[in-house]
Formats: sequence, C-alpha cells, structure tokens
Amino acid sequence: MNLCNSRFSVTFVRQCSTILTSPSAGIIQNRGSLTTKVPHWISSSLSCAHHTFQRTMNLTGQRGSRDSTGATGGNAPAGSGAGAPPPFQHPHCDRAAMYAQPVRKMSTKGGSYDYDLIVIGGGSAGLACAKEAVLNGARVACLDFVKPTPTLGTKWGVGGTCVNVGCIPKKLMHQASLLGEAVHEAAAYGWNVDEKIKPDWHKLVQSVQNHIKSVNWVTRVDLRDKKVEYINGLGSFVDSHTLLAKLKSGERTITAQTFVIAVGGRPRYPDIPGAVEYGITSDDLFSLDREPGKTLVVGAGYIGLECAGFLKGLGYEPTVMVRSIVLRGFDQQMAELVAASMEERGIPFLRKTVPLSVEKQDDGKLLVKYKNVETGEEAEDVYDTVLWAIGRKGLVDDLNLPNAGVTVQKDKIPVDSQEATNVANIYAVGDIIYGKPELTPVAVLAGRLLARRLYGGSTQRMDYKDVATTVFTPLEYACVGLSEEDAVKQFGADEIEVFHGYYKPTEFFIPQKSVRYCYLKAVAERHGDQRVYGLHYIGPVAGEVIQGFAAALKSGLTINTLINTVGIHPTTAEEFTRLAITKRSGLDPTPASCCS
Amino acid sequence: MNLCNSRFSVTFVRQCSTILTSPSAGIIQNRGSLTTKVPHWISSSLSCAHHTFQRTMNLTGQRGSRDSTGATGGNAPAGSGAGAPPPFQHPHCDRAAMYAQPVRKMSTKGGSYDYDLIVIGGGSAGLACAKEAVLNGARVACLDFVKPTPTLGTKWGVGGTCVNVGCIPKKLMHQASLLGEAVHEAAAYGWNVDEKIKPDWHKLVQSVQNHIKSVNWVTRVDLRDKKVEYINGLGSFVDSHTLLAKLKSGERTITAQTFVIAVGGRPRYPDIPGAVEYGITSDDLFSLDREPGKTLVVGAGYIGLECAGFLKGLGYEPTVMVRSIVLRGFDQQMAELVAASMEERGIPFLRKTVPLSVEKQDDGKLLVKYKNVETGEEAEDVYDTVLWAIGRKGLVDDLNLPNAGVTVQKDKIPVDSQEATNVANIYAVGDIIYGKPELTPVAVLAGRLLARRLYGGSTQRMDYKDVATTVFTPLEYACVGLSEEDAVKQFGADEIEVFHGYYKPTEFFIPQKSVRYCYLKAVAERHGDQRVYGLHYIGPVAGEVIQGFAAALKSGLTINTLINTVGIHPTTAEEFTRLAITKRSGLDPTPASCCS
Repeated sequence: MNLCNSRFSVTFVRQCSTILTSPSAGIIQNRGSLTTKVPHWISSSLSCAHHTFQRTMNLTGQRGSRDSTGATGGNAPAGSGAGAPPPFQHPHCDRAAMYAQPVRKMSTKGGSYDYDLIVIGGGSAGLACAKEAVLNGARVACLDFVKPTPTLGTKWGVGGTCVNVGCIPKKLMHQASLLGEAVHEAAAYGWNVDEKIKPDWHKLVQSVQNHIKSVNWVTRVDLRDKKVEYINGLGSFVDSHTLLAKLKSGERTITAQTFVIAVGGRPRYPDIPGAVEYGITSDDLFSLDREPGKTLVVGAGYIGLECAGFLKGLGYEPTVMVRSIVLRGFDQQMAELVAASMEERGIPFLRKTVPLSVEKQDDGKLLVKYKNVETGEEAEDVYDTVLWAIGRKGLVDDLNLPNAGVTVQKDKIPVDSQEATNVANIYAVGDIIYGKPELTPVAVLAGRLLARRLYGGSTQRMDYKDVATTVFTPLEYACVGLSEEDAVKQFGADEIEVFHGYYKPTEFFIPQKSVRYCYLKAVAERHGDQRVYGLHYIGPVAGEVIQGFAAALKSGLTINTLINTVGIHPTTAEEFTRLAITKRSGLDPTPASCCS
Repeated sequence: MNLCNSRFSVTFVRQCSTILTSPSAGIIQNRGSLTTKVPHWISSSLSCAHHTFQRTMNLTGQRGSRDSTGATGGNAPAGSGAGAPPPFQHPHCDRAAMYAQPVRKMSTKGGSYDYDLIVIGGGSAGLACAKEAVLNGARVACLDFVKPTPTLGTKWGVGGTCVNVGCIPKKLMHQASLLGEAVHEAAAYGWNVDEKIKPDWHKLVQSVQNHIKSVNWVTRVDLRDKKVEYINGLGSFVDSHTLLAKLKSGERTITAQTFVIAVGGRPRYPDIPGAVEYGITSDDLFSLDREPGKTLVVGAGYIGLECAGFLKGLGYEPTVMVRSIVLRGFDQQMAELVAASMEERGIPFLRKTVPLSVEKQDDGKLLVKYKNVETGEEAEDVYDTVLWAIGRKGLVDDLNLPNAGVTVQKDKIPVDSQEATNVANIYAVGDIIYGKPELTPVAVLAGRLLARRLYGGSTQRMDYKDVATTVFTPLEYACVGLSEEDAVKQFGADEIEVFHGYYKPTEFFIPQKSVRYCYLKAVAERHGDQRVYGLHYIGPVAGEVIQGFAAALKSGLTINTLINTVGIHPTTAEEFTRLAITKRSGLDPTPASCCS
C-alpha cells in the first residue's frame, strides 16, 4: 500500500500517524493533533518522503480549489530544470509538481553492498517492490531491460508487460472495438449516425502508444522521485550477491544484500519453420505499423481470445486455432460459452489443429500449413498476419541463475509462501514465479507485501487464493474462486451446488444484441452454510461486476447472503442476487420472458 | 425467490426436492432419485405448477440444442388460441410456449371470501407478492389501475412505475445518451465517425415504448399462467375484508381474507399557478410526443438529476432548479460531486430557488417565474418543457382506508417489520410504505418474502438495511451502507475512518474525458475489525461496480479484506482495493500520476 502519497511533494502534516490495528496494513492515518508513538518503519518512511509541494485538501475531499490542477493536470513550466519536458502534452499530469522536485543524492545505509536491494525487472511486480522497499528505508536499484522482439524488433520503455504490451493496450483496443459496436447501437437508439464506419488502425495505435509513453515517462519520474536508481541494463548473476549489468554504455558490476527477481515472461514461439521470421506476438501487435487484416491467432488462452475479439470488433478477420481446449485453467463450461459467443460474432475456431509452417508468398501474404491432430488431415490457408498466443516463457535464461545457485522449474522460479527462492537472499515475484496467477494486481500486491516483510517488519504474506480475473473478449467473462470442475474435484459432486441462469441485459433489447450467451453461475457448498466457492459471469463489464463479489467471497459470502442482497436495478450484476435455479434441479435456467 | 421456473411449462421432474437447510430460502434442489420428505409447502408449490412444456437441460447448463429458441425467442404460431397475438414481433420471447398454455379455471380453497389474497397494485411489489402467494397455494387477485396524468393524460399498462415510467425507460434513455457520447469517443479511438450527430427523439421514444409494451404483454401472460386473476380496476375499501373495484365495465365488490396494499406512488406537482396545466413529470417524459428542447427540471432528487442528465446527453438544454440540497438522503459530499460533474457538462443549477408560476405564451413556450429563497430576488425564463421532479406522493387517497381502519402517515402507510399495517389482515409493501427505500428490488424481495410468510410458512423478514442504489447521472453514482454523515451521527467522528481517492479510468485517456469527479470512498470503523459501514463510488457503470460490494458489506467486509482483495486490472472497480489514503491524514487523494 503506497504509504506516502506518491504525489511528488506534500507538506509533512503536523499530525502524527498511527497504523491500523494490524501493523501490516501499512495505511497512514493521523490521529488529529494527539502525539502518539509512530512505529519506526512508519516514521522512517514518512521522513524519507519529506515533500514540499503544498496541496492541502479540506477533509470533505473536495479539491482545495475548483481550478486546482488535480485531475485535469496543469501545464508544466517549460524547461523547469528537471530534465527535458515530456515527449508530448498530456492533460492529466500535474506537471508543476513533477518539475518542482530536484534530483536527490543517494544516501547509503552502510553495509558492504552497493544496495540493500536490487530488483531485477521494471514491470508491475518489480516497481511495486522497489518503491515499497524505498518507502521502508532500503537503498534500492531497479534493473530493467527489454530485448527487441525477434520478428519486428519491437521495443518499449519501463513498466513491464502490463503497461506496454499487456493489460493497458489490450483494454484500450478492446474499448475501441466496443465503441465500434456502440456506434451501431447508437443508431438503434435513434442517433442519426452513419453505420458504415471503419477504424483508422494507425490513429488507434498512435493513441495507444501515446498513452503508454506518458505512463513510461511518469513511471521514470516517479522512480527518480522515490530515489530508486533505475538502471537500463540486462542483469546476470555473478554470484548470489553480485550482478553483472550489460548497459548500452558497457558493463557494470553491482552488489546487493538482497535480490528480487521480477523479470516476468515473454510470448512463446512454436518450433516450426517460419514461426519467428514471419509470426508476430502480442509484443508486436499493439504497435504494428500496418493493418492486421486477415489474421490467424494461434492459441486459445485469454490473450489469443482477447486479441481475436478486438480484431474482429475493429473490422478485421481473425481465426482462432485451438490445439486442444479453450481457456485452459478456467471453468470449461464458461470457456466454451465464451468461444460460442465469439463464433456467433463470426470468429471461426479451428479446433484440434496445430500449425506446421509459415511461408511468405511473393505477394507478402503468409501461407500457413496446419494439421488436425485427431484426423491427421493437413490443410493450408493464406493470412495477412499470424499471431502466436501459445503461452509465455519465464525470462530465466539471461539471468545466469546457476551462478547464484537458484533452481528453476520449467522456465519459472519456484518460491515458498514468502516468495523466497532456494537461495536465502534471493526472492522472486510476479509472472516469473512458478504456479501462481500471472496477473498485474497479483504482482503488485505480492511485490509490496514482500518489500514490507523485508524492510517494514510486516509478516503479511500474499494470499494467492480467490484471485478474480477477467477475459476481455467482446462479451466479457470474469470469475473468482473455484471453477465448477475444481470444486467437484476438491469436494465431490454431491457436496457442491451450482446455481445458474441466463439473463437479458436491459440495454441489449433496443439494438437487439444477442443475449444467448449472457450467463452466470455460483458454485457453492451444498449443505451447511452454503459458502460460495466460485462465481462466474459472462456479459458486459464483467470485470466491474465481479470485483465487488471477489471482496464478498473473501468476506465469507454464502448463498443465503447472496440471494438476500437487494439488487441494483436495472443492472446485470443484480442477476447474481436473483439466482434461484440449481443445475441439479434440471429446471430451465432461461429467464421466463424476455424481460422478467 | 421464484420457486418454480416461471417458464410457462416444464415437465415435473421425477426427482424430489429438498429445501436448503434454511426453509425460508425457498430454493428448489432435487436430490437425484433419492426419495426424501418434501416439506408440504414445496410439494404443494411444485404440484400447483404442473407444467407440460418439455424443456430438458443437460446438467452443464448448455441448452438442449444450439438452435433452441431459449434466448433469441421463436415466433409464435399466429392465432394460437391464447387471445390476440402480441402487439408486435419481439425476437426475445418464446412465443410457442406462451400460446401453448390454455386458460385454466380458478379453483377456490374453501373459506367465505372470494380470494385468500387481494393485492392492490400491479407494480413490482404487488406482482412479486401475488405470484409468490400463488406459488404457495393461495387464491390471488391483483387489482391494478393507472390514472392518466393530469397534464397530458398519459397512461400505461401493467407492471407499475419501474417498467412503464421508471427504471426501465430511464435506463434506456440514459443508455441512449451514453451511446451519443460513445460516438464521439469512437472518433478519438480512430473510427471514421461523423461526430455531428443528432438524436431522433421520436424513434427513441418509440423504441422505449415498444420494449415497455412487450414487458406489459409478457407480464399479463405470466400472471394468467400463474393463475393470478388480474382485475383492471380502481379499488377502495368497503371494510377490512371487502373492496369495491371500479372497472371500465362498472363496479364489482370482492372480498378476501387478506389484503396487500402495493399501490406505490405518483409524482407530486407544486401548488403554484399553471403547474398542472403546463408542467409534466417523469410519468409523461418517456412517451412525450415532441422533443423536450429547453427544459426546466424542478427538483434535484435522483429522478430530477437522471432526467436532466440524459436530456443533456441527447442534445437538449436542461436546467436543474434546486430548492435546498441535491440528492436529499444521500452522502452530501458525493451529492455535490455529482452536481459538479453535471455542471461540468454544461447543465446549470439554479440553487436556493423555487418556482412561482408557469404561464403559456402565445408561441406555446412556457414562461416560468421563480424566486431565490435566500435573497428573495425574483426572475423568469422561457422553456419548452417544465418537468416536476419534487418527490412522489403515496396513492392512499383512492383507497378509502378509513373504511378498513388503516392509519396513514404523510400519504404513506406505516408498517411493522412484517409489513403489517395496524389492521390485522391488511399488509402494505413497496413504495407505499412509510420510511423505506423506494426501489424496485426492495419492493420485489419484500413482496416475495411477505407472501412466503403468509402462505409458505417462512419466517424470513425483509432486511431494509444496507440496500445499494445507483443514480444514473451521466457520470453515475452508486452507494451502499451509511453515508459519511450518518456514520458520524451514529458512531461519532472519532470512531469512523474514511478512505478515499480520485482515480482515472483507463478508457478515459484517449478521448480525454474529464476524470475530475471520478472519486470513491469507504466509510469504516476506525478501530477493531474496521468493519466497512458504507461504500460510495462516482464513475462509469457505478451500479455494476457496487452490487458485488453490497454482497461483501452484507458478508461483514472489513478494510483489511478490502485492500487485500486482489484487483481486476484494468477496471475502475479495482480502485476500491487500492484505497490507502484516509481523510484524516490530510494527504492528497489524487492519484500520483495520470496513470498510476
């Protein structure tokens, strides 16, 4: 939890701060003017962030003044002495604050190492861990390096997968495709829009990349302000306390008492002719300098389905090639409903099929040969783009882990419940660790909690259970907790009860959008308190719907509480409060009428 | 809870049913082929709903077959002998099932009254109560009548306020205005849309009214199938067991052992010259046969703000006239942020102002004179439309309640925790009862629970606490639990902690939508477990965001659980899991950068 306001400077308020009753929560509250003993790690973190920018906020939360630059950002004074101005004008950042902050000298905490902590990896986990460690008094360096993609040489700035080639660009392109749909819906609602519309791929890519660059820029300034030394270099272990950093300008050896490996992963390529030469991945797609056109998406995990979904929404022609099952690891009933909803939108799925080779034709198009793994039948087709989405590989190879003695399992690093590797002073967090959900909020929270345990006296560990997630397909799927099959595996079919139902979102009626796959279910204990084990929802704004229920699951949600929570009408989320039909009853889960 | 599948007919499955451990939950589950003692009220309800339409569903929830008419509805055979065909073709209803069901004779349960139960009012509460009572074996009649609006003579069908002149049309017009905004956003995301767009009010009204009529129609068929006798007449008590029903065709006296009053309310008119002749209300707006144009919305409750919001979004010019405060009964900090977000969109607010008179000019426009209640200053302006949104009046006047001995409090009926009035056999539920939230899901759940208590042996009462609600303004506001001021009043300022923050939705960046009023807060216990008392959120899809958190609040959500719930990224709902700054700390709740 960001102990200080990471706003670049704020007058240190006279009030003293006490921790919530649980020291680990790490949330600042001042106790009015009462003096109270501030736990050392709070006072040190407060003092480390002596901030000078005066931003007072009256207690009602209204801004000090209506025209304060808070949300809409103000214009930074040109050339205000804090390095070059940002690459472009962004309306949302508080430039004045960013430039007012002078670069501060690194002070060392003593000890024979260059740093208390070196974080290897400048993505979500690494940055969260590094910043939290600094807040807790550690001297921290963050090593970050991005190898260009093999096919197109795509590179990007600090911030890791999520910001540059993951959640953020994906969500923006998903939003762009939904907005294309919205234009057609607007016409049904009476707006005189011309429904023959086309996306401008280059303009979209430019807008997405502009936003990413602004995040990169702000992230660099934030790191600098928080006194995390950012080193743009590729790190490999010399021994368990020493790292060799390959920089643009040469090499540098740096030492630290503790290391956190947060290098994440990169998309895999199949081992077939032409795969690397001609196929791209999600690392390339969001900055592709040409329209994707007819695209073969190989892989039916969430990345493959999300990309195929927004490409179709943007008017291109994706086809999804599925080796075995869709959305491995997810509830398979829901996975098949998601696939069916995509097929209903005209996205073909090539099932039980694997690619054999990719060749570039004279006309520049790509000839893909492929085979049905069940029948052995071979076929081929021509595409403008081939997108590999067959999984992600942990970036262990460059780290020279054997030098540090760190063991690896299938290109991932196994860790214990404290994210410790087998080597005492070396930890790992984020997508690089073995067997944990590869999600940004997981990486961020785990990174922070690790830093608090290392430098803040906290004992709170990351809870990887009941992590909610969303697949941003055109009709989105979100879930939290156990799938139906995992619940059956864990408790036995006789001990679980599944409440389910199809529903019809009010907004879908006028544009007559398909409601065929709007479906949700609750997987629960069959007897006793009927604790809810898992919730699954296919429909609009799925992530927004499930997030609150994730907090409910963590609070011990039962079926009785769920169905006695008064709904908010008319929403789709209220359908969870109206669940009444069990699968076991065999009754039809379709709503009685189009509108009940 | 709808015990049977209200789908019109389903083969009675051989399996027997057991109730969840709590008999009140009223959810059917079959126990495979094991015979088990079925509580009388379940077996009776199952037997009452002997259904003949065969719809088997394999246990995975997939439809029996891909082309089943489930969601997308099939076409009903013309003239299939179940009364006139529906007013128009609607793609979503399963017409074949609706027509296949013959009208069945009413069988009486003995006793000296015409009915076990007469429900007065065919809105959300009344219908839910009537249908649940029938499912529990009662003989039920439902009396429903709509008096035309005084200004335009607007009338509507069965279903009450929500379906005809409330939630549903409001949400559809809100959606229409959001879609207008989406067209502009689509342009920013690269779609080649022409941004000079105009709504077709008549087409929108027609689409909305079409949808409403389909709901009316399906509701009538559902009532008939469930053997609830629907009487279109105005009811008034002769005595506590006798009702005089004024029908189109004359009068009819009907008796019942029990009455449930669910007549709801209608908009108030101010007592000023021209108010009734020239001003309209939300009862008229959704079927208005002309464009609203420049509109004065008098009243700043949620109905006034919602109407002003979508009118502005549709390109009209609303002004909101506020006598004292905005959104009375809501958290006032949030209420003012909502108002500020509307002013930012160009909707002027006339504060501390009351209307004095409305006159029609020769040009047909309306001259409104008004006065500032603080300065006494008077002014006037001309509008195309004047919309009264100054509150709703309970429809007690026509009921002749004194004849039954029922007491009234300020045009509402006081009830106890069992929704019983002061007269033993007369109950009241929904918007007509005194001092309870006037919301559809509240009315529906309360109506069902009342029916189960009356005829199902249940003891479960309606919990009116922690009811979540949403104000569908352009930037929506949703909340659950206590406002900050109510928490302070109840526990004292020193015993509550408010965690708050502004945030920036990812999708807002590219179209550079204002994030100035995207704000959320959690009001919690300051010490101990830090139970969450209330959650408040201003932002997109607010209702979808808060619904799950309402279930969490009911499950005992604490701050520690909230901030250790892993977020779903990128969503706006995840901002609740990132709350870290307290108001008491005085720290700036604005996110550190535009994108952190």
